[in-house]
Amino acid sequence: LDYQHVQVPFEITLWIMLASLAKIGFHLYNRLPSVVPESCLLIFVGLIMGGIIYGLNDKSPPVMDSDIFFLYLLPPIVLDAGYFMPSRPFFENIGTILLYAVVGTIWNVFGIGFSLYGICQVKAFHLQDVSLLHNLLFGSLIAAVDPVAVLAVFEEIHVNEKLHILVFGESLLNDAVTVVLYKLFRSFCEMPTITSVDVFAGVGKFFVVGLGGVLVGLTFGMTAAFTTRFTKDIRVIEPLFVFLYSYLSYLTAEMFHLSGIVAIIACAMGMKRYVEANISLKSHTTVKYFMKMWSSVSDTLIFIFLGVSTIGENHEWNWPYICFTVIFCLIWRALGVLVLTFFVNRFHVNTITSKDQFIIAYGGLRGAICFSLVFLLPDFHRKKLFIAATTVVILFTVFVQGMTIRPLVDLLAVKRKRESAPTVGEQIHIRFLDHLLAGIEDISGHWGQYYWKDKLEYFNSKYLQKILLREYDQPKSSIVLLYEKLERKHAIELAEAGQLGHAPSHPSLLHSGFLCSNNNRTVIMDKKLEDTLNPDVLENIQEILARNLYRIRRTGPAYNRHTLPGETEPMEHAKEILILRHKNL
Amino acid sequence: LDYQHVQVPFEITLWIMLASLAKIGFHLYNRLPSVVPESCLLIFVGLIMGGIIYGLNDKSPPVMDSDIFFLYLLPPIVLDAGYFMPSRPFFENIGTILLYAVVGTIWNVFGIGFSLYGICQVKAFHLQDVSLLHNLLFGSLIAAVDPVAVLAVFEEIHVNEKLHILVFGESLLNDAVTVVLYKLFRSFCEMPTITSVDVFAGVGKFFVVGLGGVLVGLTFGMTAAFTTRFTKDIRVIEPLFVFLYSYLSYLTAEMFHLSGIVAIIACAMGMKRYVEANISLKSHTTVKYFMKMWSSVSDTLIFIFLGVSTIGENHEWNWPYICFTVIFCLIWRALGVLVLTFFVNRFHVNTITSKDQFIIAYGGLRGAICFSLVFLLPDFHRKKLFIAATTVVILFTVFVQGMTIRPLVDLLAVKRKRESAPTVGEQIHIRFLDHLLAGIEDISGHWGQYYWKDKLEYFNSKYLQKILLREYDQPKSSIVLLYEKLERKHAIELAEAGQLGHAPSHPSLLHSGFLCSNNNRTVIMDKKLEDTLNPDVLENIQEILARNLYRIRRTGPAYNRHTLPGETEPMEHAKEILILRHKNL
Repeated sequence: LDYQHVQVPFEITLWIMLASLAKIGFHLYNRLPSVVPESCLLIFVGLIMGGIIYGLNDKSPPVMDSDIFFLYLLPPIVLDAGYFMPSRPFFENIGTILLYAVVGTIWNVFGIGFSLYGICQVKAFHLQDVSLLHNLLFGSLIAAVDPVAVLAVFEEIHVNEKLHILVFGESLLNDAVTVVLYKLFRSFCEMPTITSVDVFAGVGKFFVVGLGGVLVGLTFGMTAAFTTRFTKDIRVIEPLFVFLYSYLSYLTAEMFHLSGIVAIIACAMGMKRYVEANISLKSHTTVKYFMKMWSSVSDTLIFIFLGVSTIGENHEWNWPYICFTVIFCLIWRALGVLVLTFFVNRFHVNTITSKDQFIIAYGGLRGAICFSLVFLLPDFHRKKLFIAATTVVILFTVFVQGMTIRPLVDLLAVKRKRESAPTVGEQIHIRFLDHLLAGIEDISGHWGQYYWKDKLEYFNSKYLQKILLREYDQPKSSIVLLYEKLERKHAIELAEAGQLGHAPSHPSLLHSGFLCSNNNRTVIMDKKLEDTLNPDVLENIQEILARNLYRIRRTGPAYNRHTLPGETEPMEHAKEILILRHKNL
Repeated sequence: LDYQHVQVPFEITLWIMLASLAKIGFHLYNRLPSVVPESCLLIFVGLIMGGIIYGLNDKSPPVMDSDIFFLYLLPPIVLDAGYFMPSRPFFENIGTILLYAVVGTIWNVFGIGFSLYGICQVKAFHLQDVSLLHNLLFGSLIAAVDPVAVLAVFEEIHVNEKLHILVFGESLLNDAVTVVLYKLFRSFCEMPTITSVDVFAGVGKFFVVGLGGVLVGLTFGMTAAFTTRFTKDIRVIEPLFVFLYSYLSYLTAEMFHLSGIVAIIACAMGMKRYVEANISLKSHTTVKYFMKMWSSVSDTLIFIFLGVSTIGENHEWNWPYICFTVIFCLIWRALGVLVLTFFVNRFHVNTITSKDQFIIAYGGLRGAICFSLVFLLPDFHRKKLFIAATTVVILFTVFVQGMTIRPLVDLLAVKRKRESAPTVGEQIHIRFLDHLLAGIEDISGHWGQYYWKDKLEYFNSKYLQKILLREYDQPKSSIVLLYEKLERKHAIELAEAGQLGHAPSHPSLLHSGFLCSNNNRTVIMDKKLEDTLNPDVLENIQEILARNLYRIRRTGPAYNRHTLPGETEPMEHAKEILILRHKNL
């Protein structure tokens, strides 16, 4: 027996196997996951395993290594989150999300830090030796909402899209703030004196860390897209590039002390569209499947390790500090959400209701990131107290809030995600309104989100697509594609019912059909779609629509009485609008 | 900048990226890979990189770590090989393959070892200090044909299936022999005296190592199949189990000093059928794709590392020893193939032609396994000579043999792989003949391969399927499935040509059709198939046929004039045949 030789891969494989088997186990009994979130069950499994290890060895079980967490377990989850991020609601609410992520997190850090410092001044609690800086450092690591924990819980409760993206987007983007504040306070702790220059440098770092992350991510994302232009002859390694470049973006960002999470999200969101167009369908299935698989395993491992690491002797218990930490976490988050939403609602038509606000505040779950950060703290005499407080906050939020959020959502009758995907008709009308609004913004001279979206789309099709896509040819109109799909679907059904006529019965509608079928057809198709297509197919169609419908606006002037088709270039079109705008002004 | 922190994953990612980009680079110029095998190009890239590293640092570049090779790079390639092993030609030629792999390898080891010892006795060569045992040890590591190198070259030259499986099967199964002989001679080298008991123990180890590997592999394979019974609700982690269990089988076998390669092949071949039936189609695509991707990357990395490791100062040059090693490797392999094939041909109707024999002998490429084994040798004063000789043999076989084998195959007009897959008609007739032969073997009392195949199939459907498959229900007849597929295909074509009639034109042929359509239909389908279906679809159909046609023989007696359908059980059928056989005897 030569265990030494194979130990490392053997133990890693066994851990992953345990995680996967645990997942299977939960799903064998369907009732369990509908009451208790999977994350709670996994932590519970971890606690039991930690207890067993502790009982057998009589010493603390191994603690989750922060390096392993940040370098190997976190990236797959964030990559998955970024790649499957619904970009429309995300960019529609980007302002609100950034407000929550940046201002909200700073608010929480200082709120929690200062009020805990206040608690430390009470002599009866024996906490006078915890300085303000240490409290702020603790605040910086405990304040951030954890994307892994949020994802695990919110994926199961199916709240409406906007609410989901607000909480989840915040949990992703607050990483930049957390990184900066955590490192800032940590270096302050080790500095003899702090000058005001240091404080300003810290504020400047926010932008460097966040925007730097975006830049690194986009660079790698574009490179990935460019690389997949040349993989036509070796389809089999296509999926690899998606993973390699995203991971490199994360590592590079981490190397330069930028926000790795922000980088990998920017990379995934940036490359998705081009990579999807370049790689084969099977490669894409593999990418999607493997991403989901990987993140799901990482997720499982994180929660199990979290449970295992909880057991042991690295805690210092102090009732008041721990209890007040939990209370302050709840209070400051609730206050922050209230105040920030008040401002957000003043500038928006679609306001965030008070029910939504409650769920946003209540969904502020803490997780493995806090846990890893607290273990990364430099050694000082109260580190064990911080570890204990962090553990309690995580367990409290995951167990108590995680388990009660579903009943609360039911009780409050929070608006849920629509069960059915929007119909093609709705999709077409949404897109149509987008173009209309972009036009209105153009004319009125208001440069809002539709204006920028349109500009970005123009830049994309004018330059990026030509560089990054393999075949830059005008794709077929979405309506024609949709019609083809429907015809095929219909044919298969006929064949399956054995009613297929082998003789051609009427001349091809498809080939004589023109780009813009009339409304009538669309309605018929819409109806047919809902009846016959499964969600997967619908999703595909929606994707196609999302990509191609933008063209319509630009090709619009071609139908003008004064121009011949193909005569007006988009540039002229832009000029025309500029003249209109000048006149208005 | 904090490079230390991310160094390990960053460098691994960069190496993989380099390998993938090198692959893309070769395929951009289509002419290059058609002349030079990819493996040569990759070694060449490695040599250049090694040269650069050597030039910059002025010290030897890092040598490929044997642990990394055996634990991380080799398993994906072998798993891929085992999973996609064409089982019919493999089991049809298993006797010949085992003969080549076991007897042939032993022949080579002792042949090369003893003749090199002879060379060492020539005083002019200054090699008297290399003992017989050291020569045998060297022979044991240099004799084995390398699966990675063989696969890389033979995948590109497309020789006929039998020839391919003979060389490739040998290269996989000789691992057990290599492991035993290498470890045996290594321990002999360290022993003061060798008794005859040690020698006999060594012989006994062959069976333990080989059969033990098969046993470990099958155990894990069946467990994997059993596990995938329960993954219906979490499809996303299904592919994981295929990889985890195969890897565990490899590691477990290595841990017990059994043959890891044999174990992982047994695992993959054992589980494939059941896993495929249990997991979803998308999971299966992911498994196949990822396996190919992984093995392709491993393969690339191995050849690049091989090139990098060649550069450096760990070589001791001795012209006669190195030249004679290359010559003896060629001569003993050629002799071995000639002698063994002489015996094989006496007992087979389908003989191995002299052209085939030449290609088998010439295709005996050495690769990274030899290289890793020679670095694993215990330190002794002539180790560097062995390293040099091994490097030269590998480079000679990969470059000279690898590059000339394709022109030679053309020149000799060796029978190639058929370009088109066999038609469904052929498939049906092959299966039919199998059943006929199994019946003849039954009646004549000769327990040949058809008899055992039939027994195995019976055992499989009687017990294994019930335990390992999720839904044990009679699948539809393959003919009906095929017909459905064709109808669907036809319908899609009609739809795409716009000739789809929306009114039903004739009653369903499908639903009124019965299991055994008449010959006429089959011929029509066959014709249609060749015209319309692409290779992928054809492959699917062949798979379906392969699985289901066995049923026909067992349900055969149901058509007897004296029995009602479903009345005769397979058991009774077996009894009937037993009585017939007894009468004959």
